[in-house]
Amino acid sequence: MSDNSNTAILLLSCADRQGLVSRISSFISENGGNIINLNEHVDVNGDIFFLRVSWDISGFTIAKNGIEEAIAALVPDLDAFWKLHFANINPRAALFVSKYDHCFRDILWRNSMGEFSLDIPLIISNSPDLEPIADRYGIPFHVFPITPESKAFQEDKELDLLRESGVDFIILARYMQILSPKIVDEYPNNIINIHHSFLPAFVGSNPYRQAYERGVKIIGATSHFVTEELDQGPIIEQNIERITHRDTVKDLIRKGRDLERLVLARAVRLHSEHRILVHGSKTIVFE
Amino acid sequence: MSDNSNTAILLLSCADRQGLVSRISSFISENGGNIINLNEHVDVNGDIFFLRVSWDISGFTIAKNGIEEAIAALVPDLDAFWKLHFANINPRAALFVSKYDHCFRDILWRNSMGEFSLDIPLIISNSPDLEPIADRYGIPFHVFPITPESKAFQEDKELDLLRESGVDFIILARYMQILSPKIVDEYPNNIINIHHSFLPAFVGSNPYRQAYERGVKIIGATSHFVTEELDQGPIIEQNIERITHRDTVKDLIRKGRDLERLVLARAVRLHSEHRILVHGSKTIVFE
Amino acid sequence: MSDNSNTAILLLSCADRQGLVSRISSFISENGGNIINLNEHVDVNGDIFFLRVSWDISGFTIAKNGIEEAIAALVPDLDAFWKLHFANINPRAALFVSKYDHCFRDILWRNSMGEFSLDIPLIISNSPDLEPIADRYGIPFHVFPITPESKAFQEDKELDLLRESGVDFIILARYMQILSPKIVDEYPNNIINIHHSFLPAFVGSNPYRQAYERGVKIIGATSHFVTEELDQGPIIEQNIERITHRDTVKDLIRKGRDLERLVLARAVRLHSEHRILVHGSKTIVFE
Amino acid sequence: MSDNSNTAILLLSCADRQGLVSRISSFISENGGNIINLNEHVDVNGDIFFLRVSWDISGFTIAKNGIEEAIAALVPDLDAFWKLHFANINPRAALFVSKYDHCFRDILWRNSMGEFSLDIPLIISNSPDLEPIADRYGIPFHVFPITPESKAFQEDKELDLLRESGVDFIILARYMQILSPKIVDEYPNNIINIHHSFLPAFVGSNPYRQAYERGVKIIGATSHFVTEELDQGPIIEQNIERITHRDTVKDLIRKGRDLERLVLARAVRLHSEHRILVHGSKTIVFE
Repeated sequence: MSDNSNTAILLLSCADRQGLVSRISSFISENGGNIINLNEHVDVNGDIFFLRVSWDISGFTIAKNGIEEAIAALVPDLDAFWKLHFANINPRAALFVSKYDHCFRDILWRNSMGEFSLDIPLIISNSPDLEPIADRYGIPFHVFPITPESKAFQEDKELDLLRESGVDFIILARYMQILSPKIVDEYPNNIINIHHSFLPAFVGSNPYRQAYERGVKIIGATSHFVTEELDQGPIIEQNIERITHRDTVKDLIRKGRDLERLVLARAVRLHSEHRILVHGSKTIVFE
Repeated sequence: MSDNSNTAILLLSCADRQGLVSRISSFISENGGNIINLNEHVDVNGDIFFLRVSWDISGFTIAKNGIEEAIAALVPDLDAFWKLHFANINPRAALFVSKYDHCFRDILWRNSMGEFSLDIPLIISNSPDLEPIADRYGIPFHVFPITPESKAFQEDKELDLLRESGVDFIILARYMQILSPKIVDEYPNNIINIHHSFLPAFVGSNPYRQAYERGVKIIGATSHFVTEELDQGPIIEQNIERITHRDTVKDLIRKGRDLERLVLARAVRLHSEHRILVHGSKTIVFE
Repeated sequence: MSDNSNTAILLLSCADRQGLVSRISSFISENGGNIINLNEHVDVNGDIFFLRVSWDISGFTIAKNGIEEAIAALVPDLDAFWKLHFANINPRAALFVSKYDHCFRDILWRNSMGEFSLDIPLIISNSPDLEPIADRYGIPFHVFPITPESKAFQEDKELDLLRESGVDFIILARYMQILSPKIVDEYPNNIINIHHSFLPAFVGSNPYRQAYERGVKIIGATSHFVTEELDQGPIIEQNIERITHRDTVKDLIRKGRDLERLVLARAVRLHSEHRILVHGSKTIVFE
Repeated sequence: MSDNSNTAILLLSCADRQGLVSRISSFISENGGNIINLNEHVDVNGDIFFLRVSWDISGFTIAKNGIEEAIAALVPDLDAFWKLHFANINPRAALFVSKYDHCFRDILWRNSMGEFSLDIPLIISNSPDLEPIADRYGIPFHVFPITPESKAFQEDKELDLLRESGVDFIILARYMQILSPKIVDEYPNNIINIHHSFLPAFVGSNPYRQAYERGVKIIGATSHFVTEELDQGPIIEQNIERITHRDTVKDLIRKGRDLERLVLARAVRLHSEHRILVHGSKTIVFE
């Protein structure tokens, strides 16, 4: 599942047509690359082509800094969405958090274990509570308290910081504020949220309370990209856990913490490894 | 998990108070019964007491046909809901079906394998399609075609048949008609439906299409007791299956058939073994 | 997930080298084919290349009966294992069964629902018990009673029948006889068995009894290709179910039946759709 | 699922006989107690009776320190195994650890979140590596390096420490040493281990490597009580995760870390809440 360090990764989607795999794979082999992993999917309904290919560039005849230009020259006619990544250049993510620490600790620890190949250059919070944890990992922790009055102003400062830090995406580790469109729009399909329900069931607040009241026998958690509509963005990953009549809301919250940790971590890992393409309201996940 | 044939089973719920388990277990032991299984639950919020107890009546000093009266005399002050069953008297269920055969075949086959200890004295359908399958199991198959005009009249005839047959509960094995309140009201918490989604997500029609459009990563099925409000009754059992971007609506339907079979069978088994108590919109399931 | 009827499917594995995807995808596009699905995997340790590619041959310039030869000419230097299939030509499987009917009924019913795109031209059993079920599906049912003395002779007759029927693979739907090497060797990686445990735990007989005695909290089922060593062949699919201290061996058998049905069906589906490559003692499964 | 603080909990097992539930529940109610939860199980084969009952002692007429004596007087004829606990008195556990930190961090964090109601008065390790984590939780961390020569001597010192600390049980959070019988014998059914495989598959060392070599499609983790025979003790909890041909041994180790954390935490929670009875090589788990 892992790509070695001397590896280029291309994600591409466009209208389907004949010869796309051939065109790209020939480009790779003719320039001395060796494909490590290629996954291709054509959407049954929309005739859309989706591709993730990774290849060894040890002997590639095009210099690393020239590959992007070469690909642009390869696909000018396709009206494609595409992105090129190198496995040895970690993507950079900002971590947003409030007071719940379970996802926050988990993401930081997993990254320290090398599960993500991710750089986390900064943490943003609306509360100072979790700063000591950030300190242990040596990551700057920026506090922006948010009130209805200060929100616009504080988010501007957050955006400045995000831009300066050159982050590629944002992880909302149970961040208890709704981001304004100005942030959402600047990181399209690059803000990962964890919602503590099995979406589309129980949108909004207190999903565990909602689940308890409804008497479901299974609870869930959902990670998704953030869009302007609350809890409606493309779903990346979901998981579930059984509950019984003996479980109180407190038990649901406890069981849910495990779900949230697992589901958010999986989404972060998939996105860090450049395995997700978005099409409309859905994700294509190349595992 | 199984009770032997010389076994009485009591399900009881009432407001909690001191001494309930003692009162009932002493009644059993003082009359020469031996408890096989006792499960008790007190609801944290509502202070409601729920009990399922099964006991060996081989040496019981009260005759089988006197036990009901004895229990009535034991709990006159409790304003309790309670039901007495004997493990060697199979409950009787009517099976409702339309054209989808997967749940229908599965319930009949499982019952023939002894999974349910259930008698199915009749099958009701709005279509003659599946009669040959019923014939193989020797179960009368009654066809009542339903149109908006004929519905009230046909349901009256169905009710007559259900009453004559002395059925204890109804299993809707993907029956594609909404039952009128006159049937629902006659079998409170005794009509088991299988809905092909993870409720409360995707109520109503075409849940697999809805799930596909939303781009969820997991689909589900839910068995619940039927109430007057569509897909809102107390949930008995749920289960899920992973899907990916490669799965079409047709794949969801295929994967869903397996889910529906498993979830409905489990609900039927639990109810046949008298393991379910209903409290408000929820079930207490004593496994 | 499904390939349409005018589709060719190539499975190929060989030592990895540069340009393999390009060579094959260019062959397809240069001859007017359009790739529907391409999945490629390179084994980290062994440097082995595995490929499954399906493509639309509606406008393919090579005639259907010439494609095999063309591929042979394309890869003469690779020392590759490869097989070409057409999605509209169903593979042919023989079903072996004894007395347990759950997997047997399930495979026949699923195939009748179109879940497999498989032809089942014959059924072989060492017992006449399940013939009535075969009759309903109109499939010839051949009984070969096996005793230690008759085994060699009966298996020769079975082999004759299998050869005449031109079957591509064999499904052991809880067939309670061990096949002799002469059958196993004639269908390498083409005999699918279902073992009622989570292999490698509980090989051999009575795995549910073994699981009960050991006190595990989860039981499983495993489908695998048959090799000469019992229960040691490459694993195709596994699944599990939770059990508790309340479950008796009889409950394990009941829960296991569901597992066995699901796991065997999934393996049959994967193999019917030409999604499995074998490498050593492992399978590569292209979903 | 949680018992409040003014609660007594009785675990009891003995040969089954008539009147056991009545005797115990009458004792509770006649002395002014109110049963919160009662779970009873009779083993089908061995005619053994297992009970867990918790009751509110707010109005109990027997003083807290007299209840144990009263129960002894209640069951002198039963030759029963029984233990009395109070929900507001946390059990005390020693945590053993080596160099892997995932289970260790997880147990400490969960306990700080109140998931276990457990006191952890000391940590024992054969390596100083994880001491800084212990320090953050303010728990004494004792290092006993183990060599073949020093093992007997060091374990004596560990035993002294365990006795002084009055611990009720021991948690092996991936402790990489085999405990000698002198420790195992002093804590029968009170040493919880986490084994990183789906027992009984892959006993011994490197289970992820073993799983990879065998080509299984699912990996597991198992928590069990430690007995003198390696990996053979009564199983408390198991869980599993799917893997594919793309997963390397490194991926299995990563996925396994999540499993190990969940499975060990669940076992610790069950044991802290006095929900486990052991019978022979099996556990009865009252959830």
